[in-house]
Amino acid sequence: MKSIGILGSTGSIGTQSLDVISKLEEEIHIKYLTCNNNFELLAQQAKIFHPEVICIVNKQYKNKLTNLINSKSIRVVSGMDELLNLCKVTNLSLVINGLVGTIGMLPTIEIITAGVNVALANKESLVMAGKQINDLLKKKNVKLFPVDSEHNAIWQCLKGEKYEQINKIILTASGGPFRKTPKNQFKQIVKKDALKHPNWDMGNKITIDSATMMNKGLEVIEAYWLFDVQPEQIEIVVHPQSIIHSMVEFTDGSVKAQLGTPDMKIPIQYALTYPNHGNTSWEKLDLTSIGQLSFEKPDFEKFPCIKLAYKALKNGGSYPAALNIANDEAVYAFLNDKINFYQIPIFIEDALNNHKFIPNPNLEELLSLKVWIGKYIRSKIQSLI
Amino acid sequence: MKSIGILGSTGSIGTQSLDVISKLEEEIHIKYLTCNNNFELLAQQAKIFHPEVICIVNKQYKNKLTNLINSKSIRVVSGMDELLNLCKVTNLSLVINGLVGTIGMLPTIEIITAGVNVALANKESLVMAGKQINDLLKKKNVKLFPVDSEHNAIWQCLKGEKYEQINKIILTASGGPFRKTPKNQFKQIVKKDALKHPNWDMGNKITIDSATMMNKGLEVIEAYWLFDVQPEQIEIVVHPQSIIHSMVEFTDGSVKAQLGTPDMKIPIQYALTYPNHGNTSWEKLDLTSIGQLSFEKPDFEKFPCIKLAYKALKNGGSYPAALNIANDEAVYAFLNDKINFYQIPIFIEDALNNHKFIPNPNLEELLSLKVWIGKYIRSKIQSLI
Repeated sequence: MKSIGILGSTGSIGTQSLDVISKLEEEIHIKYLTCNNNFELLAQQAKIFHPEVICIVNKQYKNKLTNLINSKSIRVVSGMDELLNLCKVTNLSLVINGLVGTIGMLPTIEIITAGVNVALANKESLVMAGKQINDLLKKKNVKLFPVDSEHNAIWQCLKGEKYEQINKIILTASGGPFRKTPKNQFKQIVKKDALKHPNWDMGNKITIDSATMMNKGLEVIEAYWLFDVQPEQIEIVVHPQSIIHSMVEFTDGSVKAQLGTPDMKIPIQYALTYPNHGNTSWEKLDLTSIGQLSFEKPDFEKFPCIKLAYKALKNGGSYPAALNIANDEAVYAFLNDKINFYQIPIFIEDALNNHKFIPNPNLEELLSLKVWIGKYIRSKIQSLI
Repeated sequence: MKSIGILGSTGSIGTQSLDVISKLEEEIHIKYLTCNNNFELLAQQAKIFHPEVICIVNKQYKNKLTNLINSKSIRVVSGMDELLNLCKVTNLSLVINGLVGTIGMLPTIEIITAGVNVALANKESLVMAGKQINDLLKKKNVKLFPVDSEHNAIWQCLKGEKYEQINKIILTASGGPFRKTPKNQFKQIVKKDALKHPNWDMGNKITIDSATMMNKGLEVIEAYWLFDVQPEQIEIVVHPQSIIHSMVEFTDGSVKAQLGTPDMKIPIQYALTYPNHGNTSWEKLDLTSIGQLSFEKPDFEKFPCIKLAYKALKNGGSYPAALNIANDEAVYAFLNDKINFYQIPIFIEDALNNHKFIPNPNLEELLSLKVWIGKYIRSKIQSLI
């Protein structure tokens, strides 16, 4: 029996993971569940899945959660420190990291340090600290299973293959809700529209990243660290139907693709059952009822976030981390109605250009960079008002 | 250095194989080349590739070929017996069987019996004698590499996977030149139109099989023997662009596909370099310039050959062999202007229904069946005139 932990169990990846686990043939023991604020859902999940520990990061909900649980067999803890302590638990098969944003990085590092495999849905971990994580994975002989649908697809396509025979990685992108919106209308984009994703049901942060296409930019950086390729070997192709989740072109021109319904449960389950494909009851892909799959080049002018991501990857050092932190700040500022949609890349580019470049940032330097960029962007926003 | 033989070197697969070999990084020694009639091309190939032996099946061209070669280092032989003797050569890495039609079966069996791997483009071998060939492969611990673009695609998708986790094999079909032709116009189809394949450059026999869609039916049977699935796990999807060469759906709903330009050189090279992907200079796939891929259900009423193939596979025993032999006869009768295009499935069905069913035919019985069906169909055609 596998024993696992789930970080962010009340979020999009977390709830879908529990859904998968409840239907899996193999019985899975849940060691812990964590969430930020949603104590009611966490309590419900705890009653169904009987974890040993549950952690609510926002301490103000600890008492409410404890009262709701009312069980001596489930330990309730709270705060980020306790979450990081859970990540240090060693006797687990896997931890699913479904945390959103930069906050997910330290937990990823702690889990690997504890010698436990990570099913990683938090792409920011690799964007921020790809080199450190890859070094740790080697040192601890631990595996990282990508849960992002694109990287999970590439990982599946690479099964049995040699990474040095990759010619190109082709990341597919839905193009987001503004694929057909002319560039001159981007100034009128409001939050309601940006939160409408055509295919995937995801959290708010990732949905906005998809609308700016920064999501794809971050995925380019993630692919760089996962699959040992050069930036110019990673290509983005807009594929509005989100049926082909990504592709790998090999040196002989043969291309492998992984396809499926746009349902995160497939990559989540594959990470849980790897190297096997489990059985499922959910709806299967029917290409004849879909009829057509289309492909187009991404528009780098309409979506400058992609250009910024490639530039950050090529510059290396602290650039990808700075890109990611600045994006977190800018997106939350947009979600909190402090800035407009079109300003997101402007704030990011400004922070990138003005951050103090560090060639090989360590974790402390990354955390300082996070503080500096947070302050920098907030002061810039303040000065606009 | 690999040492290989090529059966049918002047045909479509053979010439493309030599083209691949001439550009491969790895040096390949050619032990022998064979052809039916085209002694001039065979002589040219021999001068370039320096095989040890060349074999022309049609004995009347042996002297012409010997004179053209005019070399003491290349042995010239002729006749089907000599071709089969070459198949018994044991110290080879691989033989590419690019023969067309039922004639390819015995050579496949001889090569495996000699303990040599086969790169099989002759689907008729498996359709005729799938059970015998699979038994021999196990006994001799020899591998069969499918060269047919569809089966090569499936084989690539299954790299690193477990066959028991296959849910479904999805064979793609171009739909042939008559995909959009209404059923009521099939009686007017003439040879010139049937020989126009929309995507692939192939020999005449296979091009007609593609027009009747019997090619796909034979591929269903081939897939059955190659991938250890049940008939109802093999699905045909019409995909007119021939970019996705085939797909595998696993038990979790994850689908893997292999894509590429419609160029047989990719599967041929993969069979030569397996398990590696070699380097190539040929044109790579560009999905954004193709723009759209489309998918539709096959029309079993317009293309009764598909129904006949599924029926033969489900009936088992001598049915698949009878289907294949009858198809060979009917197609050559059509190519020789003895019957009409729409009559091909009618002759096949008649022969299927009237052949003497054998539950477990041995090779002798298969060869007798070939003789019987040949006579039966020719007498039926004669009686029409």
